[in-house]
Amino acid sequence: MTLHPFDTAEAALRAALPPACFRELTPAYLEEPRGRYASAGGLLIAPATTDEVATVLRICNDARVGVVPYGGGTGLVGGQMAPDGPMPVILSMERMTAIRHIDPDGFNMVVEAGVILEAIQKAAADADRLFPLSLASQGSARIGGNLATNAGGVNVLRYGNTRDLVLGIEAVLPDGTIHHGLSALRKNNTGYDLRHLLIGSEGTLGIITAATLKLVSRPSSQATALLAVPGPKAALELLSLGRKHLGEAISAFELMHRMGLDFLAEVGPDVRAPFETPPEWMVLIDVGTSGTLVAQDALEALFAEAFDGGLVSDGVISQSETQRAEFWAIREQIPEANRRIGSVSSHDISVPIAAIPGFIAEAPGRLAELGDWRINCFGHLGDGNLHYNVFPVHGKSRSDHDNLRPAIKACVHDLVHEMGGSISAEHGVGRTKVADLERYGDPGKLVAMRAIKAALDPMGIMNPGAVLPER
Amino acid sequence: MTLHPFDTAEAALRAALPPACFRELTPAYLEEPRGRYASAGGLLIAPATTDEVATVLRICNDARVGVVPYGGGTGLVGGQMAPDGPMPVILSMERMTAIRHIDPDGFNMVVEAGVILEAIQKAAADADRLFPLSLASQGSARIGGNLATNAGGVNVLRYGNTRDLVLGIEAVLPDGTIHHGLSALRKNNTGYDLRHLLIGSEGTLGIITAATLKLVSRPSSQATALLAVPGPKAALELLSLGRKHLGEAISAFELMHRMGLDFLAEVGPDVRAPFETPPEWMVLIDVGTSGTLVAQDALEALFAEAFDGGLVSDGVISQSETQRAEFWAIREQIPEANRRIGSVSSHDISVPIAAIPGFIAEAPGRLAELGDWRINCFGHLGDGNLHYNVFPVHGKSRSDHDNLRPAIKACVHDLVHEMGGSISAEHGVGRTKVADLERYGDPGKLVAMRAIKAALDPMGIMNPGAVLPER
Repeated sequence: MTLHPFDTAEAALRAALPPACFRELTPAYLEEPRGRYASAGGLLIAPATTDEVATVLRICNDARVGVVPYGGGTGLVGGQMAPDGPMPVILSMERMTAIRHIDPDGFNMVVEAGVILEAIQKAAADADRLFPLSLASQGSARIGGNLATNAGGVNVLRYGNTRDLVLGIEAVLPDGTIHHGLSALRKNNTGYDLRHLLIGSEGTLGIITAATLKLVSRPSSQATALLAVPGPKAALELLSLGRKHLGEAISAFELMHRMGLDFLAEVGPDVRAPFETPPEWMVLIDVGTSGTLVAQDALEALFAEAFDGGLVSDGVISQSETQRAEFWAIREQIPEANRRIGSVSSHDISVPIAAIPGFIAEAPGRLAELGDWRINCFGHLGDGNLHYNVFPVHGKSRSDHDNLRPAIKACVHDLVHEMGGSISAEHGVGRTKVADLERYGDPGKLVAMRAIKAALDPMGIMNPGAVLPER
Repeated sequence: MTLHPFDTAEAALRAALPPACFRELTPAYLEEPRGRYASAGGLLIAPATTDEVATVLRICNDARVGVVPYGGGTGLVGGQMAPDGPMPVILSMERMTAIRHIDPDGFNMVVEAGVILEAIQKAAADADRLFPLSLASQGSARIGGNLATNAGGVNVLRYGNTRDLVLGIEAVLPDGTIHHGLSALRKNNTGYDLRHLLIGSEGTLGIITAATLKLVSRPSSQATALLAVPGPKAALELLSLGRKHLGEAISAFELMHRMGLDFLAEVGPDVRAPFETPPEWMVLIDVGTSGTLVAQDALEALFAEAFDGGLVSDGVISQSETQRAEFWAIREQIPEANRRIGSVSSHDISVPIAAIPGFIAEAPGRLAELGDWRINCFGHLGDGNLHYNVFPVHGKSRSDHDNLRPAIKACVHDLVHEMGGSISAEHGVGRTKVADLERYGDPGKLVAMRAIKAALDPMGIMNPGAVLPER
């Protein structure tokens, strides 16, 4: 199926849409955070309504013009890029930024795909509710991108991935058909779950234009602990103990290696961990409780028992919101420090939770066969999700190792695959991992995925080259 | 697409499968709980392995023979029935009953589709974990049927529907392709979510043969309250107040009308509510807490505040596990009492939670235009899900009103639809609601569903006539 460049449809698009939909394609649209891809160009269209999105897709479908959806541009796997092929329409959701409705009593809100994640969090908080999706790029990521990639983040342990926070969606299918599914229902067993099919499909099956999001109660009390642990295995045991004490009240359980602190000290940002001697392994535990239970007391009880049991050797429990924010800043600035150092290869992997210590023990030896590295391993331990990033040693830079990147990636991904894990835990497949999905993915699943793609997008216009290879 | 009767494939099936797969088609397979459908017959096959399931589907697909999946036979919408068309293969999961693996530390277990739900609950409890799916038919329902219909039940408020309790699935696609997706990962963003597509598809897209189920911590303390409330609106306010006190610790929040107690008194089973004068409206609240919080104390604090605020007028909090079971018995025996009375029309509906009082206020007046009825309204208030069942008055029987059933159903479903609700909250579409789905379903969703069905099951062999009309 050959696609055509956007200029074959441009006249029809300009005739059918208001002039305000056509915006200047500034360089920002052509870059992505990791600098692995550059878009060659395209026709930038920013519709203001769902009907306008439908018009774009219908015309592009008829003309066989590719459509690359664009949210906040924060994706880490190149899903928002158009590096090759006939120049597509770049469909930005930046003008669909309405919070259409918020219903605190019904614990839901309806937002358009272009709303910035942080604005959603704020609107929920203003209504005395919590929208728990939280991730490093929340100041610029748009919810449509979070939905398209089923984003994860730091609160998955308690509240689930993005898909678990969605009651209904409105979406446009590739031929321009609109699916009106903005249900606020908690139970609705009427046919196939299109919501979950479109969420996580990375713009390859249609465009989610709006969603009904679940809200939850705001915890009455919150506290964060930063604890030194003997190692990953003790961290897992601490999680088990924490669950016994706190049930679902543990919102985040993050593992960090000292390398993250070293990087922060080396290149900034200027945040410091509250330890005289930084421990090799740390966990950050975030707790939010309801009713009369005080989060800080609960963490202190947990710390006491864990200390007695040898699961933690040192630690601090936040005494104020300021201190809580300081602890979180350490965790949240690690990705920026990583960016400044410049990784040779970054991996967003998951394994069954119990396999985490084994993975962390095994990977360095395998990587050492390829060279000398600094490894910054951190992530969402409670979800079995690690960011396992490989950096050059002092005095070397990432570009010194460009030739080894594929081998490093294969080394890490092979081990993950052997352990029953996933080579994309929360970032998605995008363009970066298309070949990995073909290599590691279940053949039966790939058969079904190709059939679904062909059925819903027979012209292959939607985000061509993402997730599945172009036909 | 014309299907052929099973005898066109029987020789091939008998040649390819061990004799033990072929079982006697006793009358039990031809009936369903509501007595609305009877299967005309078929070839009963009970495979023991996933490979044997694949063999059945491959041969049936090649021969264009319909396959009707059969779990525990407890479905309430006729999805397990084969009332018309060329006689199909009836594919029973009754021999795939292994619990393949249980991992308490990883909070998951792998079960085959034929395991009885109660056996799964018990295995989880034996490993000091909770599998929270709980519903009236759990003593005979098989997990494969729960997965196929995305069953709901009494713990959805806290733990979600069946789909929310599944980490991965193993499934056979209609052409015999096996999807190996028994992942125990909490995060895995590698392509389209086949799991959620197959869950809730009611056997029309393939056969789920096994699943990795999520387990949760067992609450350290549990208690149940049975409270008299002034009406549905007060019940909703009580739920909000309860969430403030207890956060996610409320596992169930069930509404019951006095009619349920009247029915129990009239026809049994012999269970009694602990009120001298039965109130018109009651709620049953189930709470499970962790750590040092005692569930009974929390319920007492909630009761005190709710009583002062006029949200409850009377009530009892369980003082023992025996009493807790007694309260639950009232709720759980109502469906059996309903069955003995014999409904003219039963409705498994949901509306946005805030719309529940309006629905309960409006429906009786509309139904009164069609005749005199007794209405037993009960259900999962916290999920916005009511079982709104219409019964004949004393001295009449359901068969006196057979001609009115369609009008009653339309009356209730029209109102639900007007209020943005669902005509099938937790039971599914099956055969009963195929026309309703066509009538009330979103046209855009139906377009996508038909495309997906045609793509994955081009011969139309899977559960023909269920969910979507036969082509």
